[in-house]
Amino acid sequence: MHALDMITAKRDGQRHSDAQLRAWIDAVAAGTVPDYQAAAWLMAVFLRGMDAAETHALTVAMADSGRRLDLSVLGDQVVDKHSTGGVGDKTTLVVGPLAAAMGLTVAKMSGQGLGHTGGTLDKLESVPGLKVAMSPEAIIDQARRIGLVIAGQSQDLAPADKILYALRDVTATVPSLPLIASSIMSKKLASGAPAIVLDVKVGGGAFMKTLDEARALAEAMAEIGRRSGLRMACCLSRMDAPLGRAVGNALELREAIATLRGEGPSDLHELSLTLVGLMQVLALHSGQPDHRRSEMEHALRDGSALGLLRRMIEAQGGDGRVIDEPERLPTAPVRGMVTAEASGWVTAMDAEAIGRIALDLGAGRRQKEDAVDPAVGIVMQVGLGDRIAAGRPLAEIHAQGDLTADTAAVALRRAVTITDDPLPALPAVVIEQWVRL
Amino acid sequence: MHALDMITAKRDGQRHSDAQLRAWIDAVAAGTVPDYQAAAWLMAVFLRGMDAAETHALTVAMADSGRRLDLSVLGDQVVDKHSTGGVGDKTTLVVGPLAAAMGLTVAKMSGQGLGHTGGTLDKLESVPGLKVAMSPEAIIDQARRIGLVIAGQSQDLAPADKILYALRDVTATVPSLPLIASSIMSKKLASGAPAIVLDVKVGGGAFMKTLDEARALAEAMAEIGRRSGLRMACCLSRMDAPLGRAVGNALELREAIATLRGEGPSDLHELSLTLVGLMQVLALHSGQPDHRRSEMEHALRDGSALGLLRRMIEAQGGDGRVIDEPERLPTAPVRGMVTAEASGWVTAMDAEAIGRIALDLGAGRRQKEDAVDPAVGIVMQVGLGDRIAAGRPLAEIHAQGDLTADTAAVALRRAVTITDDPLPALPAVVIEQWVRL
Repeated sequence: MHALDMITAKRDGQRHSDAQLRAWIDAVAAGTVPDYQAAAWLMAVFLRGMDAAETHALTVAMADSGRRLDLSVLGDQVVDKHSTGGVGDKTTLVVGPLAAAMGLTVAKMSGQGLGHTGGTLDKLESVPGLKVAMSPEAIIDQARRIGLVIAGQSQDLAPADKILYALRDVTATVPSLPLIASSIMSKKLASGAPAIVLDVKVGGGAFMKTLDEARALAEAMAEIGRRSGLRMACCLSRMDAPLGRAVGNALELREAIATLRGEGPSDLHELSLTLVGLMQVLALHSGQPDHRRSEMEHALRDGSALGLLRRMIEAQGGDGRVIDEPERLPTAPVRGMVTAEASGWVTAMDAEAIGRIALDLGAGRRQKEDAVDPAVGIVMQVGLGDRIAAGRPLAEIHAQGDLTADTAAVALRRAVTITDDPLPALPAVVIEQWVRL
Repeated sequence: MHALDMITAKRDGQRHSDAQLRAWIDAVAAGTVPDYQAAAWLMAVFLRGMDAAETHALTVAMADSGRRLDLSVLGDQVVDKHSTGGVGDKTTLVVGPLAAAMGLTVAKMSGQGLGHTGGTLDKLESVPGLKVAMSPEAIIDQARRIGLVIAGQSQDLAPADKILYALRDVTATVPSLPLIASSIMSKKLASGAPAIVLDVKVGGGAFMKTLDEARALAEAMAEIGRRSGLRMACCLSRMDAPLGRAVGNALELREAIATLRGEGPSDLHELSLTLVGLMQVLALHSGQPDHRRSEMEHALRDGSALGLLRRMIEAQGGDGRVIDEPERLPTAPVRGMVTAEASGWVTAMDAEAIGRIALDLGAGRRQKEDAVDPAVGIVMQVGLGDRIAAGRPLAEIHAQGDLTADTAAVALRRAVTITDDPLPALPAVVIEQWVRL
């Protein structure tokens, strides 16, 4: 494998063969490709693209660059879920326990979040004592015992992807469809689930701003999975406003707990049921997306879903009492209520702006090395489409100090649009869904 | 200047402003841009291009990244010449002395050759004792005294270009019009001549394979010069067959000496007179390209041009006796005559293949660190369009050993096409020429 030949071929718009991509990625993983050559190749891929076969071959090569987990020992009810991420997205914390309560096995490895708020791991880690670093053996053991585990990705999961992702981040080559799809799917392939439900977010608070972009990403990821023999399903969901009301790590965990009690915000509730519905279709190899709605509602009301979250928390060393005593979660010293300056209808909540406010409060990471503050964040007091009177609560700010709280309050008022006329119709959180068995 | 912003802008096909390019190149020269970011930017430039204003701004910024020579102290008859390089191209060794004999001042800085044969410097350095490393003061002093100096480029000439060129070489971003044009012209601007004649080679043995490509490069370089207030002229010349008969460092110097006696091969003679004609037009700010042909012929016949080469060699510490006693130049221990296997007409001589043979004999460099062998090479015994009989000499091989000589002989026969029918017409070496005052 000659690096210059690879770069030249892609520069000139040629296809790479499976064998070429395998050799290239092996060399990247072995550290024998200098960064500058990988960077030039990434930019050529960004601008010239890759077809479905190349994208699949790249993905498999990256998955094979490290240890691949084998979840087949857990039977055929194993289903994974992946979200492309958005502001207030605590779906995994609801979907995992609910899916397990429906008899599915969820053995999920999450990456660390880099963005407005922490990732699923950071949200989970707001539970005192909880550990997410687990060996493959411990993951499989816990999944077998209770059907649910959410662990951190090991360093050896698709290491070639780690190298390339770090380089993409500093060479303006992140937003490329084949590179995004292969990066995500390499970790999914290496994680070993035979079926995956994708939750691709669309809108101002998501990576994909338009429906067309989101659909293209979903199709690209599903095609990679299909070519590797996985059962795939996808949901495109709206991310213009934050998902649910809470934005911030412990605050989002609280909201997930409420939702697992059947008392969550309607958009998070709806999206979670849609995703678990798709997961069941994949596990059963048949059925309709709206599969077993009433049983799911029941599993929320009877506490069985919430019980699974508690069992998982305890299995991973965490304090299970947080389920019933949320005050045991970290809390911020300063809480301030932001009120509406005018009366009217809440017709827009800028998810990206609200995400930035949470980041400024300390809830997220600007750089990989940053620590997240589990306690801080925002809890919206209104939802999209609500009517609000001047002086009534708009959002509660949870901060470490008065100054950051005040700055957040000013920015938050700007992020919420209040108009004289209501929205003609409330947009549904789920835009579309489909299954590829 | 944020590196990511620069990369993103060019990735998305946006223009860079003069100030942005200046800051970017300053950062490259200061070593604060990591290689991988410069590489991603180079690939984006390769695929997205640059307009004339950007290419000029990039060139000026690279020229300004090091020391710029001021040749204005030498008066207004200073003219430089630049060739894009080809097989057997010893034109500078003829043009320099002839131009000086016509009253022009030639203070030229050459780069080290990387290719089939050495560059002008390597050819000159086959003269025992001759030095090309000279201070700016020594260059100007010699130019003032004898009107002719050919020195090596200092390390401080356009250092940003050196950094980017080294990176282009290993990232498949060499063959980009704005990058080639700005690289060449940055060194020309820094070299300080107010007028430049470009000799852009076209054909199989040149970097530019087609007339359209060569014309585009010539126009791009001339436009950069024009925007910097330089007088520019250009000649497009054919490089399908080697220029002249000799390929190899000392062998080419011998041929240059013969040409300065008026006894050189017709293509080299013709091209040299064309280039010096253009140089005079630029110096005079007027005239026709065929300016003062008869005076130039006279300067060759009366020895004044050759005398200037001798004076320059001696001024730079070399043994001037090589002019009359060429046996003082390095000679190879093995000489073998390759003969024609069939009778017919020489209708093609593959310059690129012949260049590779010379490289294999040791005449050129594969890598920057390689030493060139001054003695080895090839002297063609026929020219394009000649009639040859089977068994008659085709080329003389000069080698260090029998094995390399034999390998060269086999390859050389393949590089020369002998057909039953003659060429319909002998192609002229000069394809077109123009002046931009």
